[in-house]
Amino acid sequence: MSNLNKLSAADIARGIAAKKFTAEAVVRDCLDRIADREPTVHAWATIDPDYALMQARALDRMPSSRGALHGVPIGVKDIIDTEYLPTEMGSAIYKGHRSFGDAACVALARMAGAVILGKTVTAEFAGMSPGPTTNPHNTAHTPGGSSSGSAAAVADFMVPVAYGTQTGGSVLRPASYCGCVGYKPTFNLINRQGIKFAAETLDTIGLIARTVDDVELVMAVLINKPPRYLRRDAPPRLGLCRTPLWDTAEEPTMQAVEDAAKRLAAAGASVKEIVLGDEFTKLYETARETINNYERSKSMAADWQHHPDKISKVLGGRIKEGLAMKHEDYIAALQLAERCRARIDDAYDGIDAIISPCVKGEAPVGISYTGEPGFQQFWTVLNGPAMSLPTHQGPQGLPVGIQLVAPRYHDDQLFACARWVMERLV
Amino acid sequence: MSNLNKLSAADIARGIAAKKFTAEAVVRDCLDRIADREPTVHAWATIDPDYALMQARALDRMPSSRGALHGVPIGVKDIIDTEYLPTEMGSAIYKGHRSFGDAACVALARMAGAVILGKTVTAEFAGMSPGPTTNPHNTAHTPGGSSSGSAAAVADFMVPVAYGTQTGGSVLRPASYCGCVGYKPTFNLINRQGIKFAAETLDTIGLIARTVDDVELVMAVLINKPPRYLRRDAPPRLGLCRTPLWDTAEEPTMQAVEDAAKRLAAAGASVKEIVLGDEFTKLYETARETINNYERSKSMAADWQHHPDKISKVLGGRIKEGLAMKHEDYIAALQLAERCRARIDDAYDGIDAIISPCVKGEAPVGISYTGEPGFQQFWTVLNGPAMSLPTHQGPQGLPVGIQLVAPRYHDDQLFACARWVMERLV
Repeated sequence: MSNLNKLSAADIARGIAAKKFTAEAVVRDCLDRIADREPTVHAWATIDPDYALMQARALDRMPSSRGALHGVPIGVKDIIDTEYLPTEMGSAIYKGHRSFGDAACVALARMAGAVILGKTVTAEFAGMSPGPTTNPHNTAHTPGGSSSGSAAAVADFMVPVAYGTQTGGSVLRPASYCGCVGYKPTFNLINRQGIKFAAETLDTIGLIARTVDDVELVMAVLINKPPRYLRRDAPPRLGLCRTPLWDTAEEPTMQAVEDAAKRLAAAGASVKEIVLGDEFTKLYETARETINNYERSKSMAADWQHHPDKISKVLGGRIKEGLAMKHEDYIAALQLAERCRARIDDAYDGIDAIISPCVKGEAPVGISYTGEPGFQQFWTVLNGPAMSLPTHQGPQGLPVGIQLVAPRYHDDQLFACARWVMERLV
Repeated sequence: MSNLNKLSAADIARGIAAKKFTAEAVVRDCLDRIADREPTVHAWATIDPDYALMQARALDRMPSSRGALHGVPIGVKDIIDTEYLPTEMGSAIYKGHRSFGDAACVALARMAGAVILGKTVTAEFAGMSPGPTTNPHNTAHTPGGSSSGSAAAVADFMVPVAYGTQTGGSVLRPASYCGCVGYKPTFNLINRQGIKFAAETLDTIGLIARTVDDVELVMAVLINKPPRYLRRDAPPRLGLCRTPLWDTAEEPTMQAVEDAAKRLAAAGASVKEIVLGDEFTKLYETARETINNYERSKSMAADWQHHPDKISKVLGGRIKEGLAMKHEDYIAALQLAERCRARIDDAYDGIDAIISPCVKGEAPVGISYTGEPGFQQFWTVLNGPAMSLPTHQGPQGLPVGIQLVAPRYHDDQLFACARWVMERLV
């Protein structure tokens, strides 16, 4: 077989288990694709073919399967610690830095047989100052950020699945721009030992893949929950929440969301318009930013103290703002977030999942700006699981995803709704 | 002046600011005390006199104060990252390990002029398998754990204040056994960038000091909130919560709590008995342990994968248990914890702070067991601020603290009540 790099993680795991092909063959195809496309896409901060092949060959030599991800290559965002491979944070400060060992999410994947293929490009410290990655659909456009390399590598068939992190919109925005499935779990579902924090009450490790099933497959080993791949018999009860940012959306996003609502209703889903109260607007407009900057200034305190000259102007500005911020304002913001999290559960009464815009529109031209995070941020701070589904395309031929969100801890319900939606829209 | 090591952090900062003595003189007195007592107390995992003196002299040469902690020596629990000094986690796995740089709480203290005096002994990965530290009040007894070195060093006048972390009872128990003020803030108040997680939804960085004012002084620089050193005019409205563990308490603890309640009532406080519902018992008895072991198994995944032979039997058992634990049980435990956190706020209706047992009794004999964590764990999982106050003594002449707790985000109120209580009981 050829083009094993185009297979899903689930198909790779099945094929290796059935001895149709080896882990080494899969990794070779991924590395060939990378050799071919990396000079254009720049998705990888570190890729070491020998190290990847060594892992694959070791797995092929084993008398039995190591676990559910035996032989599945995974990309790891470069703010997540890995043994052997450097963790450089998209920053000159950490150039060549090697952490003590794997982050929890990397170790758990490795224990289940995954091949750690390499480290994917991150915007500086998972913020807004991007690396060199381009959008594989059109390299004149941004792939989004901050999990830029993870989205570009998965979209470009260099790897079937990659880790990202989302503090504002850093998993779902690049997934949407690159036409992938992006998944931010319920806050804190994936253990965060071994990541560099941006803002720790918001930071969530997530996944970028090409199928919903692959997301669930990887999650299964991270949280010890056998995948169920639930499919709905009955059409879902959907909410449609335009959010207070609706007027800032561009035409392709408005069309994608309204087209989705119309076609899903025609397929049998109930679709109920949901309007959230003013405190959600306040949470989005000011409190989220307060939490982000206050916590960011603390988590970056050591870097800021010793290397202010190596920190971008945009990030330095946030750190300075955060260091000056009053503790009382931070606590008030946390408390507003808690109230809204309790309130959003009410909005889900009689609703299985909510459809919402995911991005402002198609990926902007140029790679110096990773795009507007508003629509992703709005849901991140509410802590529920969120997915970007690659359902639509804009007039420039670039992907435009829609966002599907569900109540906290109802990640399975979100997966089931996502499958139902994907089968009807794509 | 001599014995500068016996001064509080506040007095050290004031004395240096008034040029009564230098930071170097303070550090020298601390180092002399350590040289004298360390062979008996074993509070330090790493102490490097030259490095400590170098920091102090650099501060003394500065034309103006660096901040509120200018010249104040601080001890740092050895699971918290520090530049230059190793971070060994109380584990052979991390022997000689140097992190990339300071954890957030260390960097922020350093930016405010603190001298990082050294790393204090931690039980293995902040768990239950202790290091060599003894109780300075009687070296035949445990100092408690897991922040063993921090409590012993502060109690023994080696350093005025030290960082600890509390997942179950790791700040308040050693503080109580060693006769210090222990403080676990509202969950997540001190930024956790740069610590090794035990169980990340419970891990809280805290402080061990000899006065309530010193706790507030250090907190001020960590959270950007000028200290107010509030003192109450009116006597506080106190709750008395024996918890479902009351029957497990030994005589000295029962006497301490009842004596405190009686004398504080005589001094004008209202004291209302508080009995919490069955779900709090269930939270303590099973859910807390579920959260702890599930998360512990993830945060230790890399260490467990590569070095199972270097992990103690007790910790290895928890990891194995956690890895086998069903995700559904973990989520149910998190949700019970959330319900109880919402409910406990009701219990504070008309109450400023709650008095509760802090420890089972005096520090047990021997240093192989750090003592029962139950009374501390009970409150940690509820996320509110908690203090151990050195108010009583048992029949063996060892300290027995009482615990004072307050609603989440009411840390200032807790400090004010703690001052009122200390002034009346000690």
